[in-house]
This record gives sequence, structure tokens and C-alpha cells, in this order.
Amino acid sequence: MATILVPDQVSAVEDAEALRKACQGWGTNEKAIISILGHRNAAQRMQIRLAYEQLYQEDLIKRLESELSGDFERAVYRWILDPADRDAVLAHVAIRKTKPADYHVVIEISCTRSPEELLAIRRAYQARYKCSLEEDVAAHTSGDVRKLLVALVSAFRYDGEEINARLADSEADILHNAITKKEFNHEDVIRIVSTRSKTQLMATFNRYRDDHGTSITKNLQLGESGDQFLEALRTTIRCINDPKKYFEKVLRNSIKKFGTDEDGLTRAIVTRAEKDLKDIKELYYQRNSVPLEQVVAKDTSGEYKAFLLTLLGKED
Amino acid sequence: MATILVPDQVSAVEDAEALRKACQGWGTNEKAIISILGHRNAAQRMQIRLAYEQLYQEDLIKRLESELSGDFERAVYRWILDPADRDAVLAHVAIRKTKPADYHVVIEISCTRSPEELLAIRRAYQARYKCSLEEDVAAHTSGDVRKLLVALVSAFRYDGEEINARLADSEADILHNAITKKEFNHEDVIRIVSTRSKTQLMATFNRYRDDHGTSITKNLQLGESGDQFLEALRTTIRCINDPKKYFEKVLRNSIKKFGTDEDGLTRAIVTRAEKDLKDIKELYYQRNSVPLEQVVAKDTSGEYKAFLLTLLGKED
Repeated sequence: MATILVPDQVSAVEDAEALRKACQGWGTNEKAIISILGHRNAAQRMQIRLAYEQLYQEDLIKRLESELSGDFERAVYRWILDPADRDAVLAHVAIRKTKPADYHVVIEISCTRSPEELLAIRRAYQARYKCSLEEDVAAHTSGDVRKLLVALVSAFRYDGEEINARLADSEADILHNAITKKEFNHEDVIRIVSTRSKTQLMATFNRYRDDHGTSITKNLQLGESGDQFLEALRTTIRCINDPKKYFEKVLRNSIKKFGTDEDGLTRAIVTRAEKDLKDIKELYYQRNSVPLEQVVAKDTSGEYKAFLLTLLGKED
Repeated sequence: MATILVPDQVSAVEDAEALRKACQGWGTNEKAIISILGHRNAAQRMQIRLAYEQLYQEDLIKRLESELSGDFERAVYRWILDPADRDAVLAHVAIRKTKPADYHVVIEISCTRSPEELLAIRRAYQARYKCSLEEDVAAHTSGDVRKLLVALVSAFRYDGEEINARLADSEADILHNAITKKEFNHEDVIRIVSTRSKTQLMATFNRYRDDHGTSITKNLQLGESGDQFLEALRTTIRCINDPKKYFEKVLRNSIKKFGTDEDGLTRAIVTRAEKDLKDIKELYYQRNSVPLEQVVAKDTSGEYKAFLLTLLGKED
């Protein structure tokens, strides 16, 4: 379930007017910006952008970028974008970050979104960057990691509920054989995790655990730490197997670090606030015995903190 | 340009009634079926199917399958399907044909259709077969051919006209280096042909010819004949570089063989009749100094012949 609180009745024109007012004159009224945008869903934010453009012949996003700064600006920018467009931006930043590309973000986007959502992201990517997502991923990675990543971003997985039990059985064995022999990069491993439907893969992973007495993610810890491909494979399987649990860990790691990882924190909160952040918050509490809001409040400050807490469902 | 001749005014209901009549009583009136379906475009055929279903609570396709037989039945069946659905069927038949899969058809479908058309085919494939196209391709191929095929069917290429000249330059060199060293299956070769936009690839292939004095397709003949991967790579490049010329050759080969290859002949005519078969016919005449219709008429017979000639633009 989502965390953001959206009022029953909203007017895109009134919101646009209020945002204009918040941006005018000496200083910016960040509180007003948060109290509007932090309580609107994707469709409403899109309407506000359109209304703002019509009223003032100005791009709201550009205006906000010039008014805001730092982590708060980046969070608002990511939040205001249409989800597919936002994911295209996140992927692009991750791919071009530095060498090597931040492939965990690419995996996260390709494996925790639905097949149709991933297609929408690929379309948005092309509209923005005049090339395909897989083209950029392929050009900025290499070796086995490239094989895996290109296959993941190119996949249009079957989204039905059907399970082929015999296939789950045989492919659990293929995975187990490869892992036991430490052939993590075996082409069948890449083929299976990148083409099978998520429902089918869950069945395969369950079968793996039943037949071999241990989960595939546990088994993958057999490899050398620091092996990039192995880490990418582990992230892939975790994203497919239990996306909520995966995001709980993204949040945990982004806060646990010496110096908060604002990119990870913002990304997890912004991309899940309209989806399942409530469930992720619960998992976080179960796992860490402290409410996520409390940790976020302690680790962040100013408008950035106020904005994240609003997205986490705090009443104004 | 298309070859089929479509009257200005058509009524789906009248067509459905006439088809019903053609199927009723003793014997089937194949001429009537050809004179209707052979002169209707994809949207009209879809309307006829809907009208037929509403009028008679019967699936027109099933009815035709029970009335017709042989090459004629297969041609009508392929023709009446929505193009994306038809390509899904063609791909499925090719993949499952025998071991090894008929990968030329898979390449043809993935490289001569537009990026959006290929997406529609992947959707249609999932709706029909409850799994993804890339999943089936991956499960029925192996080795380097698999790498290439999975990448081709999974691609959602950028479809814009922009060309990056520097990239064309550097990637022409990468391709030339790999080909000179006979490393045809080099991962960069697969990456380039499967992810770059077609416009970009045309620029790259032109650059290749300019810089190295010979075309990439000519250069690819350096390899061993009978090398499956090399043949697949050649087909890929020919499909991207000049689809009309490619289809001219499909037609030429399907007729030239000892015993006509009806699958190839039907496929090329049915899939191009609404698109560019007129241009392909011209190329055929240029290359073979004999009109395509004449050769088709000589090599086929009966209703199958009558249907193909109608699709080739023959007046009734």
C-alpha cells in the first residue's frame, strides 16, 4: 500500500496558482510546495504541470529547479516526473554515473517494475535521450555484467499467473548445478533469470529451496565477495523474489552508511511512496525495531527531511 | 507500395454474408473467398471477422480452416490474421519447427518490422502462447546463435532519424576488426547489430564500405560456409540494410529450389502485400528479367495460385 495522503478533492489550477505564489517574491515558500506536491498522486501532478504551463507559459519543473537546491531539489524533481519518465532519468544517471555504471539501479528498475511499466520506461528513455535504454546499457558496461543487464532491460516478460511445474523443476536443477560448480555466469543462468516470467521464477526458486535445502540467494553467497557479476545476479534474484524486502534493504543500507546515501534514500522513497511504501515501512520496523520515519528524521534535515516525511505519510 | 487492390466502399456485414454463403452447401466456393479476402486490408479483414462472429456465432478462421486445405488453407489463414498476430504465429512455427529452429524467419520478423511493430508481435505472442517470445527463442536455440537471436527479438530500437557520425565511424572499425580477425561472434558485433537504431546502422555500414572499400555483407563471406552463426549474422545485416532486397531474395530462393518452398513464398507475399510488395516485385524483375507473377503462376497451381496472384495485384 501507498504512504502518501491525497485529499479527496483537488484542483490542478488552484494547485498551480499556489505553487506560482510559493515561487514568487523574496525567498521560496518550500513548506507550501511540500504541502501541495507531497499530497498529490502521479496523475494529479501531471495535471498540475499542464495547468501551470497553460497559466504561466512556464515549465513548472524548470521553475522549481531554479528555486530549490541540493537534496531537496533532486527529490522534488524526481517526485514530480511521471513514473516512467522518472525511471528513465534514474536509469540514465545510473548508467552514466561513472565507470562502472551503477548497475544495481538498472537491475532494480528492470526487475521490480511490471513488464508493461518497463516498456513505458524504455519509451520514455528514447523520447528523452534519442537512443534506446539497452543501447546505452550495452555501451556503458562490459563482460558478463553486460550480458545480464542488457537481457534484463530488454525483457518483456510474460505477466500471467500460469506456472509450468516441470520447467520449474528442471530449471531449479540447472541453476543449482551452475551455482554448485561456481559457474554463476553460465548462459543458462542468465537466460533463465532474464526471460522467464516472475511467477515462474518464484516457482523455480521455491523448487530450488525444496529440493536442495537452501535458498538460491543463500547459495549465491558461495561466490567470492567483490565479484561484480555475482553481486548483480544476487540483486536480480532479490528484486524478482521479493521487491519489498529488497527496498527495505536499500533503505537500511542508505541510512546505515557513514554519511547517509541520499540518492538511495530518495530513490526508494520517491519510487515506492505511491505503491507499496507502507508495506516496506512495516518490514523495516520488523527488521530494525525502529520506525523508518524516526531514522529518516534523525539522518536528514531541513526541507529535504520535511519532504521525505510527507511522502512517508506524515500528516502536516 | 502495396500490391493488393482494395475497392473504395466495402461492407464488413456483406462480406461476412458472402463468405458464409461461399462456405455453405456442397463444396466450397474458393473463388468467392479469394475475391473477397484477397481485396481487403488488415483493418477490413478484422471487421469482417467481427461481423461474421456476431452474425453467425462462429469463428470465421475456424470455419475456413475446416473448408480449405493444403497450401491454400495455410496462405488464407496467415493472410486473415492481424499482422502482429500473424508474425507471432510465424515466429512460433519457426521456433518449434524442428531442431534447430528456423532462425532466419525469427531474424526476418525481428529486423524487418518497425520497433513498434515488433513490440506488438511480442504482445500477440504472449497472448497466444502464454510465454514471451524471447523466452521461447532462448529455450529452443543455443550458443552464439541464441545470443544473437534473443538480443534481436528483445530489442526495442530507437526509431528516430538522428545519426551519430562519430559512433558510426568507431563502430564500423569495431565491426571491421572483428570480421578481419574472423571473430564474427564477438560480443561487440552482437551488441552493435542488436541495439543500434536502423538509421544508425545504415550509417555504420556505409562508413564501413567507405573506409574499407568493400561492403560488410561481402566481407562476411570470408567466413566458412555452413557456419550457422555467420549465416544468421548475414541475414540480420541484410534485413536491416535493405529489407526489400532481402525479400526479393526470399522469393527468388523459394521459387528457384527444386520443388517450390511454399512456406517462404507464402510468407513473403502475405506479409508484404499490404506494405512494399510492389517495390519487391520491381526488384525481382530487375534481378531476374522475368515478372514475379509469371514465375509464381508457373510454379503453383489451383486456388493457391489464384490467391497468391490476387495478393500480387492481379485484377480479377
